[in-house]
Parts: sequence; C-alpha cells; structure tokens
Amino acid sequence: MNNRIIDRITDPKAIKMLSHPELVTLAAELRTEIIETCSKNGGHLAPSLGVVELTLALHRIFDTAKDRIIWDVGHQAYAHKLITGRKDSFHTLRTLDGISGFPKRAESEHDHFDVGHSSTSISAATGMAVARDLLKGTNKVIAVIGDGSMTGGIAYEGLNHAGHLNKDLVVILNDNEMSIAENVGALSNFLSRTITNEFVHKIKKDLESFLEGLDSVGHSVLKVAKRAEESLKGLFTPGMLFEAFGFEYIGPIDGHDVELLTETFEKVKRFDDAVLIHVVTKKGKGYPPAEKNPSLFHGVGPFDIATGKVIKGKGGAASYTGIFGDVIRKIASEDERLVAITAAMPDGTGLSPFAKEFPERFFDVGIAEQHGVTFAAGIAAKGLRPVFAVYSSFLQRAYDQIFHDVCLQNLPVTFAIDRAGVVGSDGPTHHGVFDLSFLRHLPNMVVMAPKDENELQHMLFTSVNYEGPSAVRYPRGNGLGVPLDQQLRTLPIGKSELLRSGTDGLILAVGTMVSPCFAVAEALAKEGMNLAVVNARFIKPLDSELIIDLIRTTNGPVFTAEENAIQGGFGSSILELIEESGFSGIRVIRIGYPDRFIEQGEQAELKSRYGLDEAGLEATIKKALKL
Amino acid sequence: MNNRIIDRITDPKAIKMLSHPELVTLAAELRTEIIETCSKNGGHLAPSLGVVELTLALHRIFDTAKDRIIWDVGHQAYAHKLITGRKDSFHTLRTLDGISGFPKRAESEHDHFDVGHSSTSISAATGMAVARDLLKGTNKVIAVIGDGSMTGGIAYEGLNHAGHLNKDLVVILNDNEMSIAENVGALSNFLSRTITNEFVHKIKKDLESFLEGLDSVGHSVLKVAKRAEESLKGLFTPGMLFEAFGFEYIGPIDGHDVELLTETFEKVKRFDDAVLIHVVTKKGKGYPPAEKNPSLFHGVGPFDIATGKVIKGKGGAASYTGIFGDVIRKIASEDERLVAITAAMPDGTGLSPFAKEFPERFFDVGIAEQHGVTFAAGIAAKGLRPVFAVYSSFLQRAYDQIFHDVCLQNLPVTFAIDRAGVVGSDGPTHHGVFDLSFLRHLPNMVVMAPKDENELQHMLFTSVNYEGPSAVRYPRGNGLGVPLDQQLRTLPIGKSELLRSGTDGLILAVGTMVSPCFAVAEALAKEGMNLAVVNARFIKPLDSELIIDLIRTTNGPVFTAEENAIQGGFGSSILELIEESGFSGIRVIRIGYPDRFIEQGEQAELKSRYGLDEAGLEATIKKALKL
Repeated sequence: MNNRIIDRITDPKAIKMLSHPELVTLAAELRTEIIETCSKNGGHLAPSLGVVELTLALHRIFDTAKDRIIWDVGHQAYAHKLITGRKDSFHTLRTLDGISGFPKRAESEHDHFDVGHSSTSISAATGMAVARDLLKGTNKVIAVIGDGSMTGGIAYEGLNHAGHLNKDLVVILNDNEMSIAENVGALSNFLSRTITNEFVHKIKKDLESFLEGLDSVGHSVLKVAKRAEESLKGLFTPGMLFEAFGFEYIGPIDGHDVELLTETFEKVKRFDDAVLIHVVTKKGKGYPPAEKNPSLFHGVGPFDIATGKVIKGKGGAASYTGIFGDVIRKIASEDERLVAITAAMPDGTGLSPFAKEFPERFFDVGIAEQHGVTFAAGIAAKGLRPVFAVYSSFLQRAYDQIFHDVCLQNLPVTFAIDRAGVVGSDGPTHHGVFDLSFLRHLPNMVVMAPKDENELQHMLFTSVNYEGPSAVRYPRGNGLGVPLDQQLRTLPIGKSELLRSGTDGLILAVGTMVSPCFAVAEALAKEGMNLAVVNARFIKPLDSELIIDLIRTTNGPVFTAEENAIQGGFGSSILELIEESGFSGIRVIRIGYPDRFIEQGEQAELKSRYGLDEAGLEATIKKALKL
Repeated sequence: MNNRIIDRITDPKAIKMLSHPELVTLAAELRTEIIETCSKNGGHLAPSLGVVELTLALHRIFDTAKDRIIWDVGHQAYAHKLITGRKDSFHTLRTLDGISGFPKRAESEHDHFDVGHSSTSISAATGMAVARDLLKGTNKVIAVIGDGSMTGGIAYEGLNHAGHLNKDLVVILNDNEMSIAENVGALSNFLSRTITNEFVHKIKKDLESFLEGLDSVGHSVLKVAKRAEESLKGLFTPGMLFEAFGFEYIGPIDGHDVELLTETFEKVKRFDDAVLIHVVTKKGKGYPPAEKNPSLFHGVGPFDIATGKVIKGKGGAASYTGIFGDVIRKIASEDERLVAITAAMPDGTGLSPFAKEFPERFFDVGIAEQHGVTFAAGIAAKGLRPVFAVYSSFLQRAYDQIFHDVCLQNLPVTFAIDRAGVVGSDGPTHHGVFDLSFLRHLPNMVVMAPKDENELQHMLFTSVNYEGPSAVRYPRGNGLGVPLDQQLRTLPIGKSELLRSGTDGLILAVGTMVSPCFAVAEALAKEGMNLAVVNARFIKPLDSELIIDLIRTTNGPVFTAEENAIQGGFGSSILELIEESGFSGIRVIRIGYPDRFIEQGEQAELKSRYGLDEAGLEATIKKALKL
C-alpha cells in the first residue's frame, strides 16, 4: 500500500497532473478508503461512491481554492474531502469533534457552503455567481445536485431564477435515478427517458406526418401549431426542459467515465452562461452490496465489508421508528381513515411495511416537505386522517404550511416527528432540537412526547383520533424495552402523568428525559431527598392544573428537562404558565440544549457533554438542592 | 338597478340557468359590485376583476356544493363570494368581523380550503383528489392558480406529485403574465410564447433540416437524436412542459370568453385524469385604471372610482416601508456591498426606487422565499451584504433556510421584516405575529425592532454592518412622524434604551409598543406612579445587564409588551432571563397577542380588542399596580 496515489494527494491541484489511468487507480483507492471508514463509522456510503469519478474530474478541471463547488445535501462529498487535505483525519468522520459528514466552510478552504438539507445548491450557487459578477471576479460556480434533490421546491425556485439571470453558472445534475429511496414524481419519469432506436424512429414518423399537416392547405395557423404540438408531445427530453428554463443543456453523459467527464468540463469551463450537465451515475458504484441495495447503503451504520451485512447495535429494544411503523399499521387496519405520507423516507420513518400492507393509503411525495404538509391538509379537509411521518429537522421546511394549511383551519393532521432531539453523527443540520420551539407557539397545535415506546403507541392513537392538528415527537434509536400494551387507548389531551411524589423539589420532564429524571429522583430518595417527577406527555396544552398544584406544594425548585433548545421550548412554557398563574417566588431551572448549534457525536456523548444524561441531570439537580 | 341578474343569484346553481348573454351582463354587474366595495374597503381588486368570466364558467359547469374549487392565494375570489350567498354581506369585506378577503371554510359550504399565502392549491387539491378516491366519491377537484404563484416551489412539488399520481384533477393555470408585480423567472418567459405565423414557419424550417439529418447515413443514433433535440429547441411550448409532468394540457384559451370557457370545462368534466387548462386573462379587466396599473390595483386601499386615484390616508408621517426604501438606498450609495432582494414585492417592500437606482444590485426572485433566503446566503458567503426585504408572514416559508443556510454558517444576511405585528384587513394569514417566536430560538440570530422610523434607519445600518445574521422587524403603516437623523450610526448590539426611570414598576417594550407604553407611563406619573420604561431595541441578544439591573431595583411588577404572539416571544425571553439569573419573587406580566389566530380588522381596532392600544395597556398596568 506504500505506493498509493491517494497518499500523494495533499492538495487537490495534484489531481491535474495525473494521467487518466492514474485517475482510474485513484478512484479505486478512494473507494477503498471510503468503504473502510464507513464500515467503521457508518455514513453516507452509496452517494459518495457514486460520484468518485465526477469529483476527480471536477478537481482536474476546476480549482476549488477559487472555484466554488456546492455539493447539494453534501452527503456525497467524501472523495472531495479525501483529496482536499482531510485524508489523515478521515477516520474521525462523523465522530465527536471529528470531521463532518458534510462540507463545512470551517473545515477547509475547498468547502464553500455548509449543507445537510436537500435542494439548496442551485440557490446558493446563483447567489455566489451574482456576487462574483458584482465583485468582478472570474471564478466558476458549480452546483452538484442529485435528481432526488430536484424534487424539492427550492431547487425549482433556484432553477427558475438562475435561468432567468443566465449568469456564468454550472449545474451538474447527478442523475442516479434515486433520491434516498426510489425516486418519485413526474420529473423523474422523463429524466429517465433514454434515447433508443425506437425513439428515433418515432421522431421520424411523427415529424413526417406533422409535415404533411403543414403542407395541406386551409388549416388555420393555430390549428397547425396545435397539431405540431400534438406530434411533438413524445419528443420531450430533459434537455428541452432545462433549455426552457434558460440553461444550456449537455448530456446525458456517463458519470463514471472520467475521461469523458474531464473533456466535458474542459469545454464547459469556457462557457459564460448558465449550463446544466446531465451526468448519469450509479449509486453505490464499486461496492456490490451498495450497488444492489443503494437505499440501505444510502446512510448506513457500521457494516462488515466482506459480506455487506450491517453490524447490529447493542440489540435489545425495538427502535421508536420500528414501533411507529408497527402501530401505524395496527391503527390503519381498524381505521380506514388513516393515510400515511412520507417525504422520500419510507425506510427512515419506518413506513415501508405500511406501504406494502396499505399501498393505496401510502404516499411518498418525494423530497417535498412543504407539499407533504399541504397535501395532508387537503386529505384531512375531506375527513380522512393523514399521518405525515418526518424527521424533526426536515419538518422545519414546512413551518409555514403547518401554520397556514393545517393550524389555521384546525385540520386533523398527525405529525409523527422522528429524530427529535440529538440524532448523532449527522450533526447540527440534522439534530431535531427546535421542534418544540417552532410548534408550540402555533395556535391549535397539540404537541406530545412519549416517555417510552409503549406511550408512543397510545400517543399516535390519541393523535389520529384527535379533531385537530397534533404532533408526536420521538427520538432516533431504541426504546426502553418496556412491554407493549396490546390495546391502544386515547390519552386525555393536556393531561400529564405524575410518576413520583415528593415535596423537596419538582421535576417536569419531557419524552426521553423522563426516564433519566426518574432514575435521578430515585437515587436522590436514597439520600433522603424526595422529588416529585412528572411525565409531561403534553408540551401543549400543558396540564396546568396538575403542574400548578405541584408547584404550589413543592418546597424546592422546579426543574424542567427536555431534549430541545432551551429558548422557547417546554421550559419556557412552564415559565409562561407560572407567569400567567400570577405566582411569584418560584425558582425554576430549565434543562435543555443551550443557545448554540449542537455538534456531531454519538447521542450519548452529546447528552453527556450537555448535561442531559443521568450524571449531568443529577449534578444540576444536586447543585440546585445544595446537596 | 332593480332588475339586476346579480340580485337573483342567491345560490350558484342559478348560474346554470343563465344564457350566455345573461352571463355577460352578470359579469358586468359583478365587476361593478367588486369595484364599488373595493373603492370603499380596499382589497384585491385587479386579481378579482381578472377572473369574473372564469368564475362564472366554473360555477356554470361544476357544482361547488360538492365539487371543490381551490383558489390559490384566494385574493381573486370576490366574484365567487358574490354568487355563493355573500352578496348582502359583501360590503363588510375585509372589515372587523366582516367577511374575509379570502375563501374561508367557516364562511360558506362553497369554500373548500382556507388560503392567503401563495402556491398551495395544487397540493391541497391533490390531497382532496386522493381522499375522494379513497372515499369512493365522484366530485371534481379544481385548483385555480396564477402564473405568479407557479414560481413558488411548493406549486412545483405539487405538480410533480400530482402528475405522478394522475388522479382526476383539474388545474387551471390563470395566466395573466403577472404575479403581484411584473413576473420574473424563466418559466414566465416561455409561458408567454405566442403561436405566430413566424413560429410555424420556423417549425417547418427546423424540421425539414432535421429530417435531412435523419436521412443522411453514418450518423450514430445518439448524434441524430442530439441533432433532433437541437432542432426542436425552439419548439418548446407550455403544453409540453405540463405534459412532461404527466398532465393533459389544454390551451391557451381566452379567459374572458365565457362561452369558450364553459365549452372547455364541459369537455374536461368528462375526463378522469390530471388535466391542466391554460387560461389567459387580463388582470384588472373591465376597470381601465386597474388594467393600466395592475400592480397598484393588485391590493389597493380606498380609491375614487371615476378617476382611479387612491384616497390617501390620514397623511402625515411617512410609512415604515417608505423609510426602509429610502435608507436602504442611502446605505447602498456608500456601501457597494449592499444587495437587495425581494420575493415578488418590489412595491410592497419599498424596494422599487432601489431597483431603479441600483438595478445591478437588485433581485426579484419571484414568489420564492426559500430560494430568496438561500440566494442571499450565497451572496453573503462571497462577502457582500444582502438585504432580504419580506413580509413577516411570508418569511415563515423560509424558516428552514434561515436556520440551515444563514444561521448555521453565521452569514451576514439582513432580514428586513415588514408587516410585523397585525397588518389589518388581510387577516390571520397575513398578520406577522410569530416572527419573534420563530427567529428568537435560532442560534446566532440577532433580532431588533425599532421604536420609530428614525430608529429603523439606524437599525438597518447596524444590521448591514453586523458580521452575522440579523433581522429588523417593523410594522405596516405610518411612522410616528419623528425627525430623521441625517447621519446613520450603528447601535451597540444587545443594548437597550432606558427612556424613563422610576421604581414603581418596569415596562420592557418592543418596537411599536414603546410609544404607547411610554405615554401610559407619563400619564401614570401624573397620578404619582413612576414606572421605568425601556425600549428593548434587541429581542436577541437581550440587554441582560440593564434589564437585570432594573429588575433588581424596581419595587413593582415587570411588564413586557410586544406586537407578537405571547407564546415564545419577547416576554418569554424575559422570563428565561430571569430564570437564568437565578432571581425569584419577580412578578412579570406579559402583554402581546394571545394563543389564537387574530382576525381581520383595522390595526387600531385589533390593538384595541387585544388590549395593545394605550387604553388597554393602561388598564392592564393599572390593574397590576392595583390602582
């Protein structure tokens, strides 16, 4: 291994000196490196494997110290990282204080825009092209966007504006016929039209009959044109779409032919208007298990390289996601009104089994959270019960639709919010630590969080049967391993659960914080301090009756604990409740994530760092109790 | 006037009985009614005048008691309201407790989806079509969407999903070649392609040369196909775009020819898959001043019918919007880094003069707030200073982009948030009463609100010169008429202004609430009660030093006053500050909008109803002081 090319690439400029055979060798070395690191740390393996040649060709032709490459979503940038000075730290990928799984401006001068959420690259690149021209710069700006990301509305907004401006801008459409799961939408259908012999034959036939029409006399101009359109219907190609948006179109070209790619980029480098290059790649390329199952290997945990078998976690309890998937099928089997919606995450949200069992009641809208929410509102307005299963941080994209289309009309939409709290290695773009803050202030909204996977079941049942908008937020990872009730029941809206009595202090805990808070209270009881512990269940509406009663009777401080930002979250709602009740003299201590972006790391590591694990909670509580 | 057809239409079914000449007469009567009411109440005149024939044709063919029409945005639905039982209440349009300027399910069984924000109709209609099919219903679902609304990303997300599903669904594209102001974007360019003789000639020429290519031997299939594409480039029509999305396409047809419209709808009624009807209308049709100036008459205040002259308000002070427009030009004339962005609101945000003076630094991105924010982030990442001027309630649509593309990278983007607080007659969809709550919890964000138009100047200057994201929120309407400093200065970040000392109580006021709070304190001083009054200036970061100092020294309660929802807003941040400071025994009274959607009405009426005018503030404060 001593003579690897990869070891000689300390600066991406070195790529420019390599021969084409050397590039092919380097591509293989990069794949080995990526596969090895991902097999240990987990990561976005399949997207990164798919663009190795594309990455090399880009670096061969462009100079990323000045030219800007914006990687859409950013989960495909591992090869880019490896050749831009991060090979030696690559083993820290996605770990606490290690390098990020996404481009990060703070990490390298070769990273130009921080990413993580989908579909932003064309907009950011357009802004950079505009700024370059105002500053009389000469650098190129290149957005690399997958066909999946193209289903996001902001990508279209960007395309529309960029085509209108027609700046010197390159958009590379990385067409792997997938987003995360199988791609959906009309757009993907015509992107995949291939140019075949039959196709050319049809063109010829259509056009000949069309020309006959033109030659005949007596047709009005309009009718002839109409006929032209009819004849040409079948001729629509992706190129025409992008041309219509004002882009020059090149492609489709083979995204694994590094020689063809460099030739193309060399040519495009001389253009000075907006051009879209349609590149076809294979997700997972070069690692057969990932090629075979690109959805599983899109974002994967540690796995065995030889077999491609994912290494199971500590095992034990089922995941919240899995329980969600089970219970939603259970509810659906008895309630025909239930309809399930995902935004390109059938596996991630646990809806795949539902999709198989109830295909006619399952909708994957693509990476389109805004549409997902308003689509759900439309369904709810007709009396059915849509459940939108979505990650907390992606639901952020539909904030206005939650307000405008759901809450304002008080429509019974269920938001099943997975990945609430810190999510781990994906880091700040993916942590779901704002949902309590951005949902709680919306009128009509009911917000719940279960203390364990059994309560999750009842909350989902409660939500589906509630006559207005409601959200259930739950974390990534395994449940507590508690037994699951067979009989689902509706929980009374706005009623909490008193888990433990005591007057030396009061702990009001939400969701994942209930169990550690209870454990701490139990431990403190052994030291002679008796704290009451409440499982809040509802962040909105609050159980003001119970909570006020307990506040009235406690002799100690009131602690609030939540896996959410400390600003505007559950703790703040308790402060508001106390203010509205006209109390004074209550000491409240809010526990949650501070007013900063939370870094990447294992969930346990982050909870420990921010004092949200048992040890941290105990320390905070003991300090306040002056123990 | 006794014999008007309009007076006989108590149920839209009556439309079905009218002859075509009668429909033409009714259209004229509806226009008269709409013009008269808007001349008194103000309203969305031009959009509603443009679709009178379209509305009549829809009601003639469809039955809105069961068929669902979803009016995108909804500001074009006045004729619909007049013929669905709301003629007698139409004079209350947009007034306090009167009928809404938008469709409202609570108002009529003929309104099927509440709207106000743009581009949601295809998503909602798709949801309804899906629900209908699951429920085995037979009704039609029709979305009516303007070409301006088509620039919004959610419309594209909806189109993509709807085309994929191919349900029985009608989308009417109301093409008036405008959104609110002049339309932008590549999409609008090709929508407006007209079919002319030249066009047909070009088709013929292109195709002939293309066929020659086909006949020549030796071309590879791919090259021939490529050549075909080149030849066909110019042939792209809107129909082909929508066909590509999976819709049947019909049009363009004259949207003022009620007979043609009814014929078309009659035909389409028998279809059972997704169809898009491209209808061309004239915004403001039938009222020459509105036809001539559709942007001014898009949403207009009271005007004189004979002259088309808008009746000026009470006059006096300049509007906040106007001051914003002035000061942003002033800053730009000395700071070349400043770039201004609007999402289809150059007039509404006061940027039109900037656009004229600095055309190369002005960008109208269309109705595309998400793209607008990320585009700004791209510009900021290159070292320039973008100012995104936007209404508070529309900024909601870009919440995730503010988080992901701006705050996470700590980029210097200025959010100039107009229409913060209640906006008046446009009602709950347009009130900007959540921005403090949804911005305040985002790390890195600085949030300011000026007490008057002079402070607005300095805040904008401060914001443009700040090295991170910052927002300045200000209300709709006139300033206080204070003199304007000629010299702009930067305010110290996170520093408040103590306006009045006193230890009988403390008022912490934000933005528009500063002046009435100060007036109340002055009045109370005459009664012997001396309250301190603070102009908060910064909602984030708080001036914790000054505020804690004042809290420490006051003998009375602490009042917080803001034109924002009471949940999670400025008042809550004060509660958080008190908690973090370890204080106890402080009585806080938060004044703001309660946890419900605020209805339409004049700003003064709403402030009075919710106790945010001087009288209400005085009553609240006096009660707390037990006066």
